[in-house]
Amino acid sequence: MSGCIELTREGLLAVVTLSNPAKFNAMSRSMWRQLREVFLALQAEADLRVVLVRGEAGNFCAGGDIAEYESFRFERDSLRAFHEEEVWGGLEAMLACDIPLLAQIEGNCMGAGVEIASCCDLRLASKDARFGAPIAKLGFPMAPREAALVAAALGESTARQMLLAAQVLQAPVLAERGFLHHLLPPDELASACLDLAQAMASLAPQAARMNKRTLRQWRQQGEAALPALVAQSYDYADSPEHREGIAAFMAKRPPVFP
Amino acid sequence: MSGCIELTREGLLAVVTLSNPAKFNAMSRSMWRQLREVFLALQAEADLRVVLVRGEAGNFCAGGDIAEYESFRFERDSLRAFHEEEVWGGLEAMLACDIPLLAQIEGNCMGAGVEIASCCDLRLASKDARFGAPIAKLGFPMAPREAALVAAALGESTARQMLLAAQVLQAPVLAERGFLHHLLPPDELASACLDLAQAMASLAPQAARMNKRTLRQWRQQGEAALPALVAQSYDYADSPEHREGIAAFMAKRPPVFP
Amino acid sequence: MSGCIELTREGLLAVVTLSNPAKFNAMSRSMWRQLREVFLALQAEADLRVVLVRGEAGNFCAGGDIAEYESFRFERDSLRAFHEEEVWGGLEAMLACDIPLLAQIEGNCMGAGVEIASCCDLRLASKDARFGAPIAKLGFPMAPREAALVAAALGESTARQMLLAAQVLQAPVLAERGFLHHLLPPDELASACLDLAQAMASLAPQAARMNKRTLRQWRQQGEAALPALVAQSYDYADSPEHREGIAAFMAKRPPVFP
Repeated sequence: MSGCIELTREGLLAVVTLSNPAKFNAMSRSMWRQLREVFLALQAEADLRVVLVRGEAGNFCAGGDIAEYESFRFERDSLRAFHEEEVWGGLEAMLACDIPLLAQIEGNCMGAGVEIASCCDLRLASKDARFGAPIAKLGFPMAPREAALVAAALGESTARQMLLAAQVLQAPVLAERGFLHHLLPPDELASACLDLAQAMASLAPQAARMNKRTLRQWRQQGEAALPALVAQSYDYADSPEHREGIAAFMAKRPPVFP
Repeated sequence: MSGCIELTREGLLAVVTLSNPAKFNAMSRSMWRQLREVFLALQAEADLRVVLVRGEAGNFCAGGDIAEYESFRFERDSLRAFHEEEVWGGLEAMLACDIPLLAQIEGNCMGAGVEIASCCDLRLASKDARFGAPIAKLGFPMAPREAALVAAALGESTARQMLLAAQVLQAPVLAERGFLHHLLPPDELASACLDLAQAMASLAPQAARMNKRTLRQWRQQGEAALPALVAQSYDYADSPEHREGIAAFMAKRPPVFP
Repeated sequence: MSGCIELTREGLLAVVTLSNPAKFNAMSRSMWRQLREVFLALQAEADLRVVLVRGEAGNFCAGGDIAEYESFRFERDSLRAFHEEEVWGGLEAMLACDIPLLAQIEGNCMGAGVEIASCCDLRLASKDARFGAPIAKLGFPMAPREAALVAAALGESTARQMLLAAQVLQAPVLAERGFLHHLLPPDELASACLDLAQAMASLAPQAARMNKRTLRQWRQQGEAALPALVAQSYDYADSPEHREGIAAFMAKRPPVFP
């Protein structure tokens, strides 16, 4: 049982660090369970505006912790429990988190790393980061919920390239294709992420939560989600946040959201 | 009550101009209502082949007319009526228009501007045009139908960047990601759009309408839309347009569609 | 009745060649029917790992064989039979094929060529290949199933550009937008495809089939497909392929899949 998920708080920002540095932060089973606990806890926090997700010591995440695999992968029930409860439990808690998530990606971002990055809203990467999901070399397919997540974030065409050709893609290619929002020189990545996190922390927090809910429902159900979303979408009309945003704009001053 | 939607006709082409130049063509409530009226009227015209959508005086559209917001945004029913009837009324009429729409984008294309551009089929932009939806600074989320529209056109990843980080993106980034079809030097944009509009006006008009209906239904319902689309898709077999296109090709002459 | 679909086998690889070179490999009706037969046969083969799809003599496929069109397109029932049975029969057999498909694209890739390429999982192209679907010049729309296929693969924005403006796009643009996975100099394309096909042939074959089924169902039904996919997804737990992949990784040797 190696590795852990570290959580630190700095004002309106939380930093979640994938930490298993001897294995380039490969996700062990206990790390998946911790990932779920950490995000369920963050979702409940009132004063949080942004979550930065990063890896320890120069890598984002190299995949799963393969040393554990022989102990549970060859029996159907334990394999299903791993993917549907442990892995999906962690990813589902990230996807359900209404707070904006920012991924800081350097070094290897493979398999589980791509899945975790796909749960984030913005992705900044070092120019030399590498991405892939070469599990076809390990003899198994991507679990369906994970494949749907990755295909939605990467685009289906790139997902096929990773899964069916086991290719590793460089960061500039994934920036061109829209998966990565910004590329940075390696020594500027951390400060760029912090700057962006601070800028995001100054934005309207309730609006962010509502935007995330809308995009989540739309991805899950398509336009069939819209009537239910519309029905609950205008309760914010009289909120202090809404009034502050408009008032600040009219007064030509920066808004200060409660 | 400022601004208006100007409509001019030149042969097979209509030009719709967003005009509120003192506010970089920000959309007032009356402009949204006019936008609907204009597109309902265009949809009914028989001899129209292409609609060019542009902004007055060097900008496409800088967003909504915020000076009006204090008068109606802080009460739920009037806020809902604004988004669901006025804004969506205009956008829905654009989306329902079976005639190909070409956006000519320069200067600022923000918020409402991105939404209006997202309703167009082709988007040509000046290399220095700027795009965003920084309403998180104004304290409110994007309405669900508008968010789904924008996410479908920009890609979900870019929509998250605009909504959750309030970032402004330059035209070359949105060309790389496929939202913009062509980039032009500022002083060549208008003539390039006119050339493209004229080229589009020479194409088969009924085929364009059918392609637009197919893509609209597919976006709304996914592949579930296909059986109903197939059922009504081959009535064009004996049409003059179809016969002319094939005959012209066989005769090695340009087609002339009725 | 011109042209044919050639099939050759080399070990774990099959090569499907669109062959109608006097017409840049335009697809005749008999070629569509042969395409279906070839892919139904390939799907049933046990020892096949990758299918390479290419065109004869310097082009991928220039579209449909227009010389045949006057004989059947102007009557609704024969037009419907052409699109729904012949064309879609061929494309459906490609989409239903569980074996990874690799497209080798050079020269013209138009109309039917774009549709056939859209059925492939990976697409490698010569830097000077050209893509489009200028059927608006021929007076007819894309059939709904074909339009949905192409829009899913190209992105809706690029599909609108091809269908509504009849524009021809160069390979570098479609690489940037993610449709093409790699661009090659013309004289290196064939060897690059063969290298990639051989690399893909060494990957886990059952995993590839499962990944393709997952992505196919997800495209057809969205996330509604997931519960049924999950229910049948973990039967591979005790398979030799799965055990070999993990064992090879732990032994730091290349896997050899049965």
